[in-house]
Amino acid sequence: MKRAFVTGGAGFIGSSLVDRLLADGCAVVAWDNFSTGQERFLEAAQTHPAFTLVRGDNLDAPALTRAMAGCDIVFHFAANADVRFGLAHPERDLQQNTIATFNVLEAMRANGIRRIAFSSTGSVYGEAKVIPTPESAPFPVQTSLYGASKLAGEGMISAYCEGFGCEAYIFRFVSILGARYTHGHIFDFYKQLREHPGYLAVLGDGMQRKSYLHISDCLDAVLRVVCTSPAAKTPPRVQIYNLGTAEYCQVRDSIAWICGRLGLKPELRFGGGQRGWVGDNPFIFLDTAKIRATGWQPKLSIQQGVVRTVEWLMENQWVLDARA
Amino acid sequence: MKRAFVTGGAGFIGSSLVDRLLADGCAVVAWDNFSTGQERFLEAAQTHPAFTLVRGDNLDAPALTRAMAGCDIVFHFAANADVRFGLAHPERDLQQNTIATFNVLEAMRANGIRRIAFSSTGSVYGEAKVIPTPESAPFPVQTSLYGASKLAGEGMISAYCEGFGCEAYIFRFVSILGARYTHGHIFDFYKQLREHPGYLAVLGDGMQRKSYLHISDCLDAVLRVVCTSPAAKTPPRVQIYNLGTAEYCQVRDSIAWICGRLGLKPELRFGGGQRGWVGDNPFIFLDTAKIRATGWQPKLSIQQGVVRTVEWLMENQWVLDARA
Repeated sequence: MKRAFVTGGAGFIGSSLVDRLLADGCAVVAWDNFSTGQERFLEAAQTHPAFTLVRGDNLDAPALTRAMAGCDIVFHFAANADVRFGLAHPERDLQQNTIATFNVLEAMRANGIRRIAFSSTGSVYGEAKVIPTPESAPFPVQTSLYGASKLAGEGMISAYCEGFGCEAYIFRFVSILGARYTHGHIFDFYKQLREHPGYLAVLGDGMQRKSYLHISDCLDAVLRVVCTSPAAKTPPRVQIYNLGTAEYCQVRDSIAWICGRLGLKPELRFGGGQRGWVGDNPFIFLDTAKIRATGWQPKLSIQQGVVRTVEWLMENQWVLDARA
Repeated sequence: MKRAFVTGGAGFIGSSLVDRLLADGCAVVAWDNFSTGQERFLEAAQTHPAFTLVRGDNLDAPALTRAMAGCDIVFHFAANADVRFGLAHPERDLQQNTIATFNVLEAMRANGIRRIAFSSTGSVYGEAKVIPTPESAPFPVQTSLYGASKLAGEGMISAYCEGFGCEAYIFRFVSILGARYTHGHIFDFYKQLREHPGYLAVLGDGMQRKSYLHISDCLDAVLRVVCTSPAAKTPPRVQIYNLGTAEYCQVRDSIAWICGRLGLKPELRFGGGQRGWVGDNPFIFLDTAKIRATGWQPKLSIQQGVVRTVEWLMENQWVLDARA
């Protein structure tokens, strides 16, 4: 890995990866359309001589192909990650996730790049019947357009590996927390409490059980898989790993941690129902035995991740307005 | 079901379905871009007063939406079904299957149509580890762009059902045989033997184990599921059924049946290797307990299906030239 191409390189996870790769001595081309990415996330990277930023959209296939020239691995981390509002604009997941992934694969093929790491999601398991959910869980029924589009991406990537001899590392993430976090329940709650510290509107009944992972632990896992040669002489072309902690929390737990850190005791106003929105999964908990077998383990608990995210938001309130 | 919309209505399976629906008293709008569909398959339907043919492509979303007006169910049977040549034009499965399915779903939403039957494929199981493969098999790695695109279609359909309250019947077909058969190994072998009866070139080693189902049995199963209310009071929004016989055959068996019917003893020239092509699955055999539990069972064996298909090709040699 000498020169990495990072789609979504100005986003939460992408820009954090950019910094890690540069620190590890890898040249990096970050590619982003800045629909949700932030220039400020790349301020440190911009001072590094081995860093290149290219503005562009994954739907502009010729520009994507040109930008990728000379790279030897692609971290395809760009996505419409807005699970909750998928139904409001169904074409977005198709375009920004499914078609975008196809364009990335074709640009790799045009450039002779054979390695891809892909940020998939635990949402591909739909409402799993096996919990904690292993990578080999029964064939799921999709419940969100986001999950369906990531599943479509996984499928195309796998078929390209089989057909064109590429190698893929597919990571099914739980929700990721930490510095540069720009959407999700902590973001929403923090923003609400800044506006009205006396109450907090909560989707669903607050009993939803969710899993989270801190960005530093997430990137440790990704880079361990991508940089370490597997023990097998002929590793499978497609390596799939769940990424998460070995625990989950309830939305109510997270609220208590957030409010505790902020020193607030807001009235909680629950929307009701088991689900936060149509297609919301009331219980996400992934079996992470496979990634743990590589020697990786998370350093931070969910509670620590939540508190650190709150602290980062407190120090970076500009992001609340930038993502308004 | 009063007025059905059939995408791919001039194709092998679609046109056969059109005839069945008309015979059952249902009005039918057939939609086809005639990329592989045949006018001659609709000759009988064209004489029926309840039949309408609309020429159009699934990528033309406005025309698709207009054509669907007034229908109460969609049989989405149009597809690029060319598994073998997916790698030669990777964009075709994305466009004709994935994006096309999205357009069908959006056209349904615009028209307030809430029921969809979808022709998926046993290829979504990739190289299954559980054989015979049940609907709930472990989460597979995709090996073909065709399978990946059908999986993408299933995912979107399921997410639409969850998000917009639709009802879907997803059928994972093995290869279908019978009258109007226009591609596949019998087509290829028959065409070869017409040109050179003395030898037959066979992809792979001929040991590939495959499953087939006759079109009449296939449509019996589809219509049984779609027309029969399930026993459950609140049937699942997404009903998934494998469709196949409870047997499989080897390519060598099929060759013997074909040659036996034709009275030929050609020299067999095997290409070699376990797979017929990159991404070919050397063993496809689906567990069909779920569809059998509805009371359906196939009337024809694989051997009968193969022989009938040969006989139809003998009587309809025009199709060999039409699909040249």
